[in-house]
Amino acid sequence: MDKYFYKCFDCRKEYSKKEIEDNFIYLCPACGLIQKNQPLRGVLLIQYDYNAIKEKHTAGELFDLQPGKFWLYDYLWPLETVKGKLKRIEDASLNLVTLSSNCYLELSSKGERFYILDDSRNPTLSFKDRASSLVVLKAMQMGIKQIAAASTGNAGSSLAGICARLGLKSIIFVPKNIPESKRIQIQSFGAEVVIVDGDYDLAFDTCLEISKKNNWYNRNTAYNPLTIEGKKSSAYDIFISTRGKMPDIIFVPVGDGVIIAGLYKGLWELKELGWIKKIPRLIAVQAAGSDAIARYCRNQKFKYKPAGSIADSICAGAPRNLYMAYNAVVKSGGSAITVNDDEIIDAQKNCARKYGILIEPSSAASYAGYKKFCKSNETSGGKSLLLFTGNGLKDTSSLLKWNKEIKPFSCGAVNKKFAVK
Amino acid sequence: MDKYFYKCFDCRKEYSKKEIEDNFIYLCPACGLIQKNQPLRGVLLIQYDYNAIKEKHTAGELFDLQPGKFWLYDYLWPLETVKGKLKRIEDASLNLVTLSSNCYLELSSKGERFYILDDSRNPTLSFKDRASSLVVLKAMQMGIKQIAAASTGNAGSSLAGICARLGLKSIIFVPKNIPESKRIQIQSFGAEVVIVDGDYDLAFDTCLEISKKNNWYNRNTAYNPLTIEGKKSSAYDIFISTRGKMPDIIFVPVGDGVIIAGLYKGLWELKELGWIKKIPRLIAVQAAGSDAIARYCRNQKFKYKPAGSIADSICAGAPRNLYMAYNAVVKSGGSAITVNDDEIIDAQKNCARKYGILIEPSSAASYAGYKKFCKSNETSGGKSLLLFTGNGLKDTSSLLKWNKEIKPFSCGAVNKKFAVK
Repeated sequence: MDKYFYKCFDCRKEYSKKEIEDNFIYLCPACGLIQKNQPLRGVLLIQYDYNAIKEKHTAGELFDLQPGKFWLYDYLWPLETVKGKLKRIEDASLNLVTLSSNCYLELSSKGERFYILDDSRNPTLSFKDRASSLVVLKAMQMGIKQIAAASTGNAGSSLAGICARLGLKSIIFVPKNIPESKRIQIQSFGAEVVIVDGDYDLAFDTCLEISKKNNWYNRNTAYNPLTIEGKKSSAYDIFISTRGKMPDIIFVPVGDGVIIAGLYKGLWELKELGWIKKIPRLIAVQAAGSDAIARYCRNQKFKYKPAGSIADSICAGAPRNLYMAYNAVVKSGGSAITVNDDEIIDAQKNCARKYGILIEPSSAASYAGYKKFCKSNETSGGKSLLLFTGNGLKDTSSLLKWNKEIKPFSCGAVNKKFAVK
Repeated sequence: MDKYFYKCFDCRKEYSKKEIEDNFIYLCPACGLIQKNQPLRGVLLIQYDYNAIKEKHTAGELFDLQPGKFWLYDYLWPLETVKGKLKRIEDASLNLVTLSSNCYLELSSKGERFYILDDSRNPTLSFKDRASSLVVLKAMQMGIKQIAAASTGNAGSSLAGICARLGLKSIIFVPKNIPESKRIQIQSFGAEVVIVDGDYDLAFDTCLEISKKNNWYNRNTAYNPLTIEGKKSSAYDIFISTRGKMPDIIFVPVGDGVIIAGLYKGLWELKELGWIKKIPRLIAVQAAGSDAIARYCRNQKFKYKPAGSIADSICAGAPRNLYMAYNAVVKSGGSAITVNDDEIIDAQKNCARKYGILIEPSSAASYAGYKKFCKSNETSGGKSLLLFTGNGLKDTSSLLKWNKEIKPFSCGAVNKKFAVK
C-alpha cells in the first residue's frame, strides 16, 4: 500500500498516488476549476495513515533532529525512500537544500516579547524554499528536468535557486512591478525569466496556460499540491525547535493563502498524531491593499480587486488558495487582520533597529499585525510567534523609503562633527 | 590564573588580560604602530594554555556540537563563563548571534568537486559576523555600550546588525564607493553611518583617530585583537562539520588579511591541541587591483598602492594585518594568487548558475582563485575548500553587470515566444 494518497479539499474525493502522479494531475479531476482572477477549486491535499504513523513513531524522535531537514522523518513526506534514504537523491544534494536550522528565535525589547520563525536565512533567503525544495526533490524522483512557476519574486528565486542547486532548469513568470533585487536573483540562478505586462494574477494565469500547452511541470503555488505540502515543514520546525512547547498564536503574512494553509496542514497533522493537544490560533495578516482573504473572512464572499502594496510578496488580488486559507483561520480559532503600508514600513524599521533583523515588507506585515493585534485585544499572556518569511535585502527599494542618502564627509568635516567637547 | 593572555605577533612580548583589557589597549604597548596607509605593527594574539586544555578536553566533545555556536567550547574564547554559561549574556541573545550551522557543503558539477564554508547565511549574511559576535559579546561583558568600526561594508553591516540584536550602539565609517545595498543594510540597523570622502584606507585611519579622541570602543579589523580571534571560529566550524576530516587546501579571499589570519590561528590551535595533524595549505586569493599581500609574498616588500576592484570587500591598499596574513600563507605551505575582475565576475556567474549559490564578488574571488590554481598546478587530488564570505544580495550592482534588463512581454508575445511547434 502507498504511504499516502490525495484528497480534494472541496469535494473530499480521494485519489491514489498513481492516479494523480502518473497523469501529472494537479487539481481534483472531479471538481477542479481554474478561472482567470479567481481562487482555485479542487485543490488537493496529501494524506497519510496517521494511525499507522502514531503506532510506529513518537514525538521524541523528532526532537532529536535538527530543524530544516524535513526528509529525515520520511514517513511524513510524499518522497520515495529506501531505508530512510531518498531514492535518486544524493546526500550532498540534500545538504544544499537544508533550510535554516537557527530559525526559532526569541525577541524582546522594551516590553515586547515574541518568538519568530526566521526563514530569512534559508538557501535563497525566503520561506518559499520550503515548497521549492520538496517540489524539486519530488520532480527529481519523477525524472522531471524542468519546472515552471509564476511568482511575485520569492517563489521564483527560490525555485530558480533550488533548481540550480539540484541541476534542473526553471522558467519563471513574474509581474511587471517585481523588485529589482528579486528579479536579479532569479536571473542570476540561470532561470528563464518572463516578465508579463501586468500583475501577479496575470503571471499566474499566463504561466499555467503556457505550462499546459508545453507539457511543463508546474510549481504554481496552491495549484501544485506539493507547494502546500512543502510549507507544512514550518509547523514541524516550530515543533522541533520548541520541543513541543508550541506558541498559542501565530501571525502569518498572507497573500495567496498557501503559507497559512501549509502551516495549518502541518499543525493539523501534529494534532492527528496526538503530538500536540491544541492547534495554535492562526492570525492571517494581509496588506490593506491586498485584503481578499480578510474580506472573505468577514462575509464569505470573494470579489476580485487588483492588489497593490509595498509588501509585494503578499500582493494577490485573486488568492488561489483562498478557501483553504479561510479554513485554516476558522478551524484554528484565529482571525484576519489588515495593515497598511505605513504600518508595514514602520514595522520593518523597528524590527531592524530594535532586533537587528532585516526583513522584507511582507514579513514586516506579520510584525505590524502582531502590534495591531496586541493593541486591540486584551493580550491573554499567550505566547506569540511571527513568521519572518523573506530577507530585507531581497527588496532594497523598500528600505530606501526610510534610509535617506548620506553625503560623504571630508576629513575636516568628520573631525568637526565628532569634535570632543 | 587567567585562562588566556595576549602576545604580540611582532615582538613576542606577553601581557596579562588585565594589562590589556583594563586599559583598553589594542596594539602591543612595546612595538605597536599605526601609520597612515601602512600595515599595523604590534598586532596582538590571544593565547591559551593549550596543554591544560588538551588534558581536560577531547576533539570528540566538539563533534557533538552544532557549528556556529562557538561559545559552547568556552575554554577557547576570551569570554567570562560560569558553569559554561556566559556571564551577563542571556541564552536568547546567543540564539540571535548563532552563525549558520548549515555552512559546510559539497559542490560538484561537470568534473569540478570542492567543498565550501558558506558564511553567506550568517545573521547579517557575511563572514564578518564571526568577528562581530565575539567583539559585541566581549563588549557586553566589559560594560561597553557603543562600538565604532571602519568597513568596506560587510564588517559594518555585521557590527551594526549584531549591535542592534544585542542592544548596543554602533558608529560605522565607510568609503565613498560602498555598494548601495551594504550602505542601506548598515543604516537600516540604526547605526550612525559616516561616509568618508575617499577609500577604505582613509575610512580606517579616520575611524581610529575619531575613536581615540572620543574614547569609543573600536572594532577596526586587525587593530582590535578580538577580530582575529572571532574569525578563528571558521577553523573550528570546518573541524566540527567534517568531524576532523579536514581539507588539504583552503582558498581564502584576502583584503586586510584578517580572515586568513583568524582562520590560521584556529588551525594552529587545533594542531597545538593535537586534534589535527597537519594545517591545510592556505591559498590567499586577492583581486588583481588590490594585491598588496600577493606582492608581499613575492618580494617581502610592502608598497602602498590605492586599491580598486569589483570585489569591494577585499579592496585594501594597506592591508592592516599584512604580516600575519603572510605568516599564515608561509607557515601553512600555501601561496598567494591574484584574479582579475573579469575572472571574478565569471566565477560569480558560474557559481550562481551551476550551484545555485549567489555570492558577492569577494567570495567569487575564492572560486576564481580555485579555478586558476587547478589550471596551473597539477591537482594532487587533494580536498579543496573555498570560503564563501558574503551573500550576493549585498551587492546587486555587481550582478547587474551580467544580468541584463528584461522587457515585459504582452500576452500575445508570451504566447508567440512559447508557441508549441
